[in-house]
Amino acid sequence: MEAITVRYVKSRPKLKEPILIEGLPGVGNVGKLAAEHLLDELKAKKFAEIYSKDFPPQVFVKPDGTVELVKNEFYYYKSKKSGTPDLLILTGDYQGLTTQGQYELSDSILDIAEEFGVKRIFTLGGYGLGRMIKEPGVLGAATDKKLVSEMKKFGIEFREDEPGGGIVGASGLLLGFGALRGMEGICLMGETSGYLVDPKSARAVLVILTKILGVEIDMDELELRAKEIDHIAQQIREMERIQKDKGTGEDLRYIG
Amino acid sequence: MEAITVRYVKSRPKLKEPILIEGLPGVGNVGKLAAEHLLDELKAKKFAEIYSKDFPPQVFVKPDGTVELVKNEFYYYKSKKSGTPDLLILTGDYQGLTTQGQYELSDSILDIAEEFGVKRIFTLGGYGLGRMIKEPGVLGAATDKKLVSEMKKFGIEFREDEPGGGIVGASGLLLGFGALRGMEGICLMGETSGYLVDPKSARAVLVILTKILGVEIDMDELELRAKEIDHIAQQIREMERIQKDKGTGEDLRYIG
Amino acid sequence: MEAITVRYVKSRPKLKEPILIEGLPGVGNVGKLAAEHLLDELKAKKFAEIYSKDFPPQVFVKPDGTVELVKNEFYYYKSKKSGTPDLLILTGDYQGLTTQGQYELSDSILDIAEEFGVKRIFTLGGYGLGRMIKEPGVLGAATDKKLVSEMKKFGIEFREDEPGGGIVGASGLLLGFGALRGMEGICLMGETSGYLVDPKSARAVLVILTKILGVEIDMDELELRAKEIDHIAQQIREMERIQKDKGTGEDLRYIG
Amino acid sequence: MEAITVRYVKSRPKLKEPILIEGLPGVGNVGKLAAEHLLDELKAKKFAEIYSKDFPPQVFVKPDGTVELVKNEFYYYKSKKSGTPDLLILTGDYQGLTTQGQYELSDSILDIAEEFGVKRIFTLGGYGLGRMIKEPGVLGAATDKKLVSEMKKFGIEFREDEPGGGIVGASGLLLGFGALRGMEGICLMGETSGYLVDPKSARAVLVILTKILGVEIDMDELELRAKEIDHIAQQIREMERIQKDKGTGEDLRYIG
Repeated sequence: MEAITVRYVKSRPKLKEPILIEGLPGVGNVGKLAAEHLLDELKAKKFAEIYSKDFPPQVFVKPDGTVELVKNEFYYYKSKKSGTPDLLILTGDYQGLTTQGQYELSDSILDIAEEFGVKRIFTLGGYGLGRMIKEPGVLGAATDKKLVSEMKKFGIEFREDEPGGGIVGASGLLLGFGALRGMEGICLMGETSGYLVDPKSARAVLVILTKILGVEIDMDELELRAKEIDHIAQQIREMERIQKDKGTGEDLRYIG
Repeated sequence: MEAITVRYVKSRPKLKEPILIEGLPGVGNVGKLAAEHLLDELKAKKFAEIYSKDFPPQVFVKPDGTVELVKNEFYYYKSKKSGTPDLLILTGDYQGLTTQGQYELSDSILDIAEEFGVKRIFTLGGYGLGRMIKEPGVLGAATDKKLVSEMKKFGIEFREDEPGGGIVGASGLLLGFGALRGMEGICLMGETSGYLVDPKSARAVLVILTKILGVEIDMDELELRAKEIDHIAQQIREMERIQKDKGTGEDLRYIG
Repeated sequence: MEAITVRYVKSRPKLKEPILIEGLPGVGNVGKLAAEHLLDELKAKKFAEIYSKDFPPQVFVKPDGTVELVKNEFYYYKSKKSGTPDLLILTGDYQGLTTQGQYELSDSILDIAEEFGVKRIFTLGGYGLGRMIKEPGVLGAATDKKLVSEMKKFGIEFREDEPGGGIVGASGLLLGFGALRGMEGICLMGETSGYLVDPKSARAVLVILTKILGVEIDMDELELRAKEIDHIAQQIREMERIQKDKGTGEDLRYIG
Repeated sequence: MEAITVRYVKSRPKLKEPILIEGLPGVGNVGKLAAEHLLDELKAKKFAEIYSKDFPPQVFVKPDGTVELVKNEFYYYKSKKSGTPDLLILTGDYQGLTTQGQYELSDSILDIAEEFGVKRIFTLGGYGLGRMIKEPGVLGAATDKKLVSEMKKFGIEFREDEPGGGIVGASGLLLGFGALRGMEGICLMGETSGYLVDPKSARAVLVILTKILGVEIDMDELELRAKEIDHIAQQIREMERIQKDKGTGEDLRYIG
């Protein structure tokens, strides 16, 4: 059994130099939320699934009682107006559980990207600040200086020495190894507390990404979810306040 | 050395579209107890052993002083009356210790299943409730909706959002990857506290499974073991009550 | 790079159906002590070294300032009188650090054993009792019942349900996988506290093993080391007594 | 995807029996500091990068906003005067995270060394003493006794039973496996507390190494950094003194 299995669920679509957009689980789940919202709104179509021996050995059970293997998924979107690009969108349930698994996964994703003639990659993620934030900015990192200048025009911030720990996982490796294959790449990181899933941060990332791509999508769904999360965050803060008053200090802040 | 070694201890039996039944160690050991009881009662014959580099590096010592490698085992049962199916039964000492090992093992099991022309798989397991239960129900999950409807008639429950964490290990992967090979699959999960090995839950699973298969087996042995475990559970509860009265709170509930 | 590298340091010796004796590090270091003493006394000659990616990534520095890779070593002994067998003796610095590494190592050892026409294997180890013991007995386990009977005559004890946890590591796997290759095998386990390296237990194992093999060796060196360890053990007990009297209860019993 | 990927960023330089010098991260970062200072001062040129699936799955973000894969790097230096050797210098961000990764990495490094006709290897590291030290000495270990004698003349100390734990990681494996390929090797270990990165220890190592190689380099930069670290160490000691006076005992000594 190979470390990675790619399974086409549709015949390979014909796309013109598509742009690859990656949004897998990570800090605040920002990348995954953004990628999923994008593909929902664009009605992108799934054409391939990726299984890995470094995902958890698990199936999910859906509400109708049927099971589904843990996986990553590739969607495509064919541009409807000239001037906007075709897209490959990658999202999924997990990143690799091991170091090796993360390398293998990125390598397989780039193999597929190369087959489709991808020349540019956007990887989406969250940038954890460890504190609540009202208006999340979007941090960037890119594969070359020209791209950094180009991206600054869209309001992406490039801050010296941030993120200090580099970019870990697919969002980093796809840029690094993509560049070695001649693809340029940009990582968009939405600021987030990192304590809760963060649709507001995902929205901030998508506002910029859609401007760059020249596509328009509705943000209502993300805004609704952002309000729900805001509400939950408020409840948690309230509970913390009460806990503090009582003098017991168990940490309630982290919620998967 | 391959990750998985399959060793035939008998020449390969001739079976007609056998049904694969898997019962490996897991929550409450329900699946393993059920599979072992089934193969004992049906006098199923062992024909293959599976060794894996992801099992513990260990031999067991039997009462007669001889050693036995840690392994999984394949048994077969040839149907004695028309209308009931031939069976392949898989049980064993361990599941893979690593994520990769679990994927490799399921893949090898499915290779063998495919060689025998298996079209349907039952995977057996426990569904841990974290509390004692008098009359365990049997939860199900399946590879497609038609199968869900078919199974409901046999008293298998399909509850929305249960099990919430999905199905982990061979019982999940065999369904997920079996479906990709065109085999349909059902997971039967006996409700169990998860605190003790649970023959009562295994019995509940077998009552339904044998009805589906159209075979009849004696349950006396399982019922006897269930009584023994009930007795142990009662003693534990008694000890806990005494401990509580004494005011010391060490947790005595978990027994492998 | 292969998982295991075998390097011949001498041209392959010509041996007649040699018996393989394994003594690698383990409980009380009994197996390694016994194997090393045996090869010293027999003036066995090293002919091969085994390196593994699952040994620690390390060289030792010898007193003369030169370095030495962490490894296992194969020695051979050509019988000097008719009726006693030729020997292959395996010892080394480590066993594999991972489950897979242990399987790989045993597999490579058996490959070499097979090339030499080995028909019988003795694996040597310690059986940890968790308490001090004056006169260590020697427990056995074997690959078939006939061998169990044969070994009982030499004073090896076979106790039902002991060792309860089976035999872990090379001493177990060589028997298990050796049997699959048609080699018979016996594990000799010297009783030991498991708290200290135990030359006395190694001596007990060698007394029986040399009787079986029909070779005679001097035990003085092991007896000397046993006395030293006895002395250390006594000092530790004395310290413990003092600690206890003082009412402080730190555990001083375990020494690598 | 291979475990290790070597990528040439320049056409392969023509070198005459170059000497390999390795300085990767380790105790006190002595080896990496020394190798980096050496290549800076010699204006050595990078010709190859090594990626490994056992490095963290990560890119760094540089001050200009561009990303860089985690890697090891090979530099070369062509001798400018007769009598001094050509050099290959290896440094990098990480050593392998796993045992296997460390073996794979050393094996790939030696493959490259062999292609260039390397006959002698110097591996550079720190020898952690666990206490502050004013004038760090340089300890050695080598692949054969003649080399030990040769190195003693340069002021390298060879102390019986030091380092007691052997040499772990690339600095050890390159010597061990290099010797098996017919390359002689010396490990130079600068004494260091191990608490802080230690440019002073790196300087001590380089003073000896450059004498052996017959090259001259400026040490100003290292001396400056050594002073900075001395200053930090002093501040830490001061803080510890204050903490001690206060009677709180948290350990402030370790700084990455």
